[in-house]
Amino acid sequence: METIREPAELRLILDRVRATGIVGFVPTMGALHAGHETLCRKSVAENDVSAASIFVNPLQFGLGEDYQRYPRDLAADQRLLQESGVDFLFAPDAAAVYPPGFQTRVIVGELSRPLEGAARPGHFEGVATIVLKLFEMVGPCRAYFGEKDFQQLQVIRRMVLDLNVPVEVRGVPTVREADGLAMSSRNRYLTTEERTAAPAIYQALLAARSLAERGVLDPDALLQEAHRRLEASPLIKPEYVALVDPDTLRPVVQPGRSAIMAIAARVGAARLIDNIMIRPPDSRPSAD
Amino acid sequence: METIREPAELRLILDRVRATGIVGFVPTMGALHAGHETLCRKSVAENDVSAASIFVNPLQFGLGEDYQRYPRDLAADQRLLQESGVDFLFAPDAAAVYPPGFQTRVIVGELSRPLEGAARPGHFEGVATIVLKLFEMVGPCRAYFGEKDFQQLQVIRRMVLDLNVPVEVRGVPTVREADGLAMSSRNRYLTTEERTAAPAIYQALLAARSLAERGVLDPDALLQEAHRRLEASPLIKPEYVALVDPDTLRPVVQPGRSAIMAIAARVGAARLIDNIMIRPPDSRPSAD
Repeated sequence: METIREPAELRLILDRVRATGIVGFVPTMGALHAGHETLCRKSVAENDVSAASIFVNPLQFGLGEDYQRYPRDLAADQRLLQESGVDFLFAPDAAAVYPPGFQTRVIVGELSRPLEGAARPGHFEGVATIVLKLFEMVGPCRAYFGEKDFQQLQVIRRMVLDLNVPVEVRGVPTVREADGLAMSSRNRYLTTEERTAAPAIYQALLAARSLAERGVLDPDALLQEAHRRLEASPLIKPEYVALVDPDTLRPVVQPGRSAIMAIAARVGAARLIDNIMIRPPDSRPSAD
Repeated sequence: METIREPAELRLILDRVRATGIVGFVPTMGALHAGHETLCRKSVAENDVSAASIFVNPLQFGLGEDYQRYPRDLAADQRLLQESGVDFLFAPDAAAVYPPGFQTRVIVGELSRPLEGAARPGHFEGVATIVLKLFEMVGPCRAYFGEKDFQQLQVIRRMVLDLNVPVEVRGVPTVREADGLAMSSRNRYLTTEERTAAPAIYQALLAARSLAERGVLDPDALLQEAHRRLEASPLIKPEYVALVDPDTLRPVVQPGRSAIMAIAARVGAARLIDNIMIRPPDSRPSAD
């Protein structure tokens, strides 16, 4: 695996690569875990050449968020990428990504506003902008994103569609610890006690899904069930629990619609998110 | 010359073309004139394959502006492009460019705010968004824009730099009628009387430049000279006369700096813009 720091150097190398093969791409902020590994292995399996990027993007962190203390461990990340079969790691400096006078933003409208967008103003503006920049720099055919960040995935899909970006976006199911906790770089912030409590988030999602599978179709009943489960863990401080349409991310108010249940919660110094698809019994995937 | 209406068809054709040659691109809103012809001939001379687009972009017109009545004459435009040697004309429908649910915008900050940005809120958001979309759809190596729309050129240059878009933007000097009026599709709105009066805009720019060449360095004196010339024509209703830094578009207040003088004025039903580079005597192009 080759590590490249300069955007201009990346372009020279990848122009050559693109002439001969399909390029898969996994953009990350580093602090890699088994979830990232799954994305990388999928890219390696499905493309001729795979590139990953590591860039902790200041633009997507709000004031008072964890940009400074976000975990960084390039050597460990390089080992994981190497073992996953990735061919190129792009790890630029912030100064090369945001040159003096930088002033352009990519803004996805409606999909950016609820959930994480409401909790983290400007977050998806930062995400959409850096992802478009990375797509332009790397020029991949396909890019891989985890479903753990479901809203991010939908925002990026919409951006790619709206701006005619010739990249195929592939979502990959969330990878979980043995006890169900969604893999996240921010799990490193958890104390032992908090780590033991944190799976309650996924258990709350499972409880709501289980209720739906048993025929409870009322959105409020499903939300209450999730809240009830979260409240049983005093270390979990829920920020939101929402049931939303997977395509529009608008709240689901009609009973019996397929929906995403999304949770954000503070657990000690970590802010964790997770989500699950909830389908009523006997529902088939449909266009609605 | 081949005319293509479907974005998907365009991609198939241009993917083939790009494999063998350098693609030049001239995005337009149609109603083509000798200014566009110059852009096209330059693209044809400098690239292996040249594409032009015709798309009257609703996103860059404000409420009450001339989107509906903007001149459209595809047959005449096709003749001009054919004669200029353009290989492909991309002329999509608005519905194909802005699919249902479209909600993404590209926003260039500081450069979009003064001058045309102040006079036409949302205009450069619409321009930056459609230009990026067209770049993604066409995938050109180089793109050509007229210097008549100087601020547009600078906004697009900044967007391309900030988003790492692999397109080289080339500005082309304004083409003028024999009496100095800058070529513009909107000149078609002028009555005979207004058409006779309209060159006063360029004359005002020339008068200011001439004053600077004779050693008058005070920005206010140059602006007053331009205003004085415009006021001599009762049919010209100036919207703004500004002296700005070519790179930042901030007002030039220090005497003796190279600057762009920009004018916007209403002439009957037309809103016309023009600009000129003003350099103090013996100034050499510099980085300031």
